[in-house]
Amino acid sequence: MTITTVGLDADDTLWHNETIFRLTQSRFLDLLSEHDTDAVQTRLAEVERRNLRLYGYGVKGFTLSMIETAMEMCDGEPPAGAIREILAAGREMLAHPVETLPGVDEALAQLSERYRLVLITKGDLLDQERKLAASGLGDLFAAIEIVSEKDRQTYERVFARHGTGPAEAVMAGNSMKSDVLPALDSGAFAVHIPYPVAWAHELAEAPEGHPRYAALASISFLPAWIEERRRAFEERR
Amino acid sequence: MTITTVGLDADDTLWHNETIFRLTQSRFLDLLSEHDTDAVQTRLAEVERRNLRLYGYGVKGFTLSMIETAMEMCDGEPPAGAIREILAAGREMLAHPVETLPGVDEALAQLSERYRLVLITKGDLLDQERKLAASGLGDLFAAIEIVSEKDRQTYERVFARHGTGPAEAVMAGNSMKSDVLPALDSGAFAVHIPYPVAWAHELAEAPEGHPRYAALASISFLPAWIEERRRAFEERR
Repeated sequence: MTITTVGLDADDTLWHNETIFRLTQSRFLDLLSEHDTDAVQTRLAEVERRNLRLYGYGVKGFTLSMIETAMEMCDGEPPAGAIREILAAGREMLAHPVETLPGVDEALAQLSERYRLVLITKGDLLDQERKLAASGLGDLFAAIEIVSEKDRQTYERVFARHGTGPAEAVMAGNSMKSDVLPALDSGAFAVHIPYPVAWAHELAEAPEGHPRYAALASISFLPAWIEERRRAFEERR
Repeated sequence: MTITTVGLDADDTLWHNETIFRLTQSRFLDLLSEHDTDAVQTRLAEVERRNLRLYGYGVKGFTLSMIETAMEMCDGEPPAGAIREILAAGREMLAHPVETLPGVDEALAQLSERYRLVLITKGDLLDQERKLAASGLGDLFAAIEIVSEKDRQTYERVFARHGTGPAEAVMAGNSMKSDVLPALDSGAFAVHIPYPVAWAHELAEAPEGHPRYAALASISFLPAWIEERRRAFEERR
């Protein structure tokens, strides 16, 4: 056995995303500044959680949840201009320039020489395609999988379709809950590359001591880590 | 050569969709009944067109466009409850029961015995997955492709990935613009199965006289039509 395939998360692994959500959210809090900030934040998190089953992940659902929160907090009468501001903020997120994280370009160029790279991401279909195109990284990927949920079955399916199965694949991403744990469950290697800001929905405990798990401080360390794993893996044959 | 693969559109080809959009839209017009109906409809169509590039296709973008239209028509002060009603209408669309069109179950069961079936659809990722699951048709498909745009390249890519290329594939759907013309361009066969109601954005002229085109009044006629094409195709070898 060897390692043939590397799956990579997109938002907050390859480019900034959560910071843009946070900026929009603080703009949203300003619009409702007559209300207690904590109360608004709590309510928004509730509304988002409630809608996740219907809206899934992404900017459009987030925009709808902000509007719903504004209506709820203000008994149906939000301040003049607030709804329009929220709509505009949502559109701006969808048109926001894509800024790749430090080391991403080099790491991916290196990895793509030896491994099949697969982008595995949640979020709005069109928006993720746009960001990939804008990142200039599109050509390095052998396949793009925009999925509605990242669970064990997702990784089994994706690594079977685009590689040689999870046992010979590595998944890398910033979310313990979505990128690391279910990928390990599927039998793949998994690397956690934390982003400074994490979305509350995506937090989970690290699987310390798992033989196929590592945490790396930067994607720059990923090629060497995978290389080492692959050598150890091949020697064990 | 032979025919190996059949691509099928989803909304308004396999199950009702446009009627649900229309019902929501008439509910929306009722909310703004103080305004001229034609003016509201025209404005909504404009807003949708303007946002298509950012929102893509699907219910979430439609809901956001309805809210934006309401804000524009009412100078930022829509009637009490209108925004909440629009949000609720959007959520109801996303939870709406799926009703397959007459003949779909039988036609797909028949086709799946001989051909690789691929679902090729635009719209919100999660919503389309939900509808497919609710339709009970999921097991008949060898692959599901939820795409942001249906152009020639889309059909080339999808029929190469899941079949033996466009030349040996048939695409069937209710949209001349999205299902028929670009599929013909890619070199596939294409069958138009009109739905009684068509979205204005999806209208286009029929390619009369094209050797690989047909219009059928119902999906029930599709298996026999493909069978005939396949025989003629194989004899020509």
